[in-house]
Amino acid sequence: MNVAVLGGGQLARMMALAGTPLGMSFAFLDPAPDAPAGSLGRHVRAGFEDPEGLDALGAWADVATWDFENVPAASAQRLAQQVPVCPPPRSLEVSQDRVVEKEFLRSLGIPVPAFAAVDSDEALRAALAAIGTPSVLKTRRFGYDGKGQRLIRTAAEAEDAWRELEHRPSVLEAFVPFSRELSLVAARGQNGAVAAYPLVENEHGNGILRLTRAPAPRLSRALQRQAEDYVGRMLARLEYVGVLALELFQVGDGLLANEFAPRVHNSGHWTIEGARTSQFENHLRALAGFPLGPAEAVEYSAMVNLIGTVPDPAPLLALPDAHLHVYGKVPRPGRKLGHVTVLGSTEAERDARLEEILARI
Amino acid sequence: MNVAVLGGGQLARMMALAGTPLGMSFAFLDPAPDAPAGSLGRHVRAGFEDPEGLDALGAWADVATWDFENVPAASAQRLAQQVPVCPPPRSLEVSQDRVVEKEFLRSLGIPVPAFAAVDSDEALRAALAAIGTPSVLKTRRFGYDGKGQRLIRTAAEAEDAWRELEHRPSVLEAFVPFSRELSLVAARGQNGAVAAYPLVENEHGNGILRLTRAPAPRLSRALQRQAEDYVGRMLARLEYVGVLALELFQVGDGLLANEFAPRVHNSGHWTIEGARTSQFENHLRALAGFPLGPAEAVEYSAMVNLIGTVPDPAPLLALPDAHLHVYGKVPRPGRKLGHVTVLGSTEAERDARLEEILARI
Repeated sequence: MNVAVLGGGQLARMMALAGTPLGMSFAFLDPAPDAPAGSLGRHVRAGFEDPEGLDALGAWADVATWDFENVPAASAQRLAQQVPVCPPPRSLEVSQDRVVEKEFLRSLGIPVPAFAAVDSDEALRAALAAIGTPSVLKTRRFGYDGKGQRLIRTAAEAEDAWRELEHRPSVLEAFVPFSRELSLVAARGQNGAVAAYPLVENEHGNGILRLTRAPAPRLSRALQRQAEDYVGRMLARLEYVGVLALELFQVGDGLLANEFAPRVHNSGHWTIEGARTSQFENHLRALAGFPLGPAEAVEYSAMVNLIGTVPDPAPLLALPDAHLHVYGKVPRPGRKLGHVTVLGSTEAERDARLEEILARI
Repeated sequence: MNVAVLGGGQLARMMALAGTPLGMSFAFLDPAPDAPAGSLGRHVRAGFEDPEGLDALGAWADVATWDFENVPAASAQRLAQQVPVCPPPRSLEVSQDRVVEKEFLRSLGIPVPAFAAVDSDEALRAALAAIGTPSVLKTRRFGYDGKGQRLIRTAAEAEDAWRELEHRPSVLEAFVPFSRELSLVAARGQNGAVAAYPLVENEHGNGILRLTRAPAPRLSRALQRQAEDYVGRMLARLEYVGVLALELFQVGDGLLANEFAPRVHNSGHWTIEGARTSQFENHLRALAGFPLGPAEAVEYSAMVNLIGTVPDPAPLLALPDAHLHVYGKVPRPGRKLGHVTVLGSTEAERDARLEEILARI
């Protein structure tokens, strides 16, 4: 089976590593000559909107997908005229605009922070009056890793914040006094079956995911059920096929949806070693129409992103059950260059090993 | 780190899948246009003795290895003039000639079946007188998967057998009334540390490995110690770096060495999911000078080779904890095209799932 991927980054790379044993071949559309996935299949070096590149990909592929959520929806739709595209391109359109996304979530009865669209000075004032402070002003489109966001502590800061966002169409969101950030990764197969991974706890720094603990500490059945219920509604409404990730805020015993990504997700990287089937394999099983694999955690895992620099592998690999994943990217400050997953048979063992990892990177 | 591999078969393919996350890049020397590893790195399409191909590989690589034991030792030595080659080319010379191999094992105090070299009619008669029947006549060189072997039940069959082997230099070995066939896979790092996997039990059919159970059922500590002792002596004498596999016959409570392979081994494929570190990762860790990872089994595993045809993946993947590995090879009778590994938390669970796998392939 020939799988085309829009984007050749680390997610595409890990897809190819998971799909090759299943007998799949890969092609990646990515303008970057050193795209991390480029060495694991055909590399079509063209822009994400390049019609010739897209058509070459479509002619070759049996199925197409993507590895980043800002892929132009029009490109996915163009491909969809030639070849089945999973997830459905509609999921890109919904997730790429924060207002559309929140309205979608709300329409499914999934609680979200209070929000208001901001497209003029007047709308900004109205939004501030409705939402209050502290709140967060975010551009509606093209945000990732905390980019395009400004915290507004007092109303006086709002105009400066919006100027910093270059007056782009934005959304003002109530700041949620969450106790922690969680996410749920789940796959839906072509037959509608869903495999949901355990909720995980995420720590961010400067808007970038630093650390995931899986399963989330103190995870109750009720919390897991609540998250699975939210995601189940989303998957069904979108007639989704593949992996989706929903980021959540925990407030008290409840969960608010923050945003979702219609793709494999950084907070699911622990599943490569820590779950009975990885998110990458389950994404590809879904695309291929194969049965999904079990999504249970096998032990306790922690995933640490390697940001800006790649440490010397030897001290890391000297730790038992530490698994290194390097993406083959040129180092730059703030850039995700790899991750390390560590396992333990108890939470305490996992946490002790995690401390060792953090001390060595 | 650039890793060159002589050979681009399924073992090279699984090496690349294990090494890419460690940040390694791969190049494969293989004349076959559809070499299974070819899509996972640079593919130098040239013969295994092609000086230009070898030199191109050597100029690019930081370290070189191989994926089949019949690689010409002279090629490994030529590469070794440009770049470190692991395992040591000497290990090829020893393993490629059954007489040299057995003399090597015997010199280390490792018991082997009685044997005698056969290079003339006279030597054949002398060997028969010394070894008796039943015995096995094998060509000294280029045997694999049971090729180049003839069972001799009575002395009268010997001359025909040798003619069938085209009077090539051979060795007559006593037929060992073994209770089972086992193998030990172990890695040795650059610092001399050894990581030995548990002994596994192998079932062959027509000379080809069909099935591996890991760890071997009814595995005693004494048996494991005995095998590790044998392999430890071999690794030390060869100043070995990388993974080596020793095939053994169990007779009563003792172990006789059959043959060894100076490479990752089919009977170690279960380690991808079934051990804390796979044989492929440990081979590459050794090459890179990284610390070896733990070699313990995580659960009970069975590995089944897919020979001649690749079954429909869907029914296999519907089984919990079944892991499919397809090598991307053109089907041919008797050809290893892939394998399936199944895990279970008990031996009984593993065996029940194994029965399911066998029923579906």
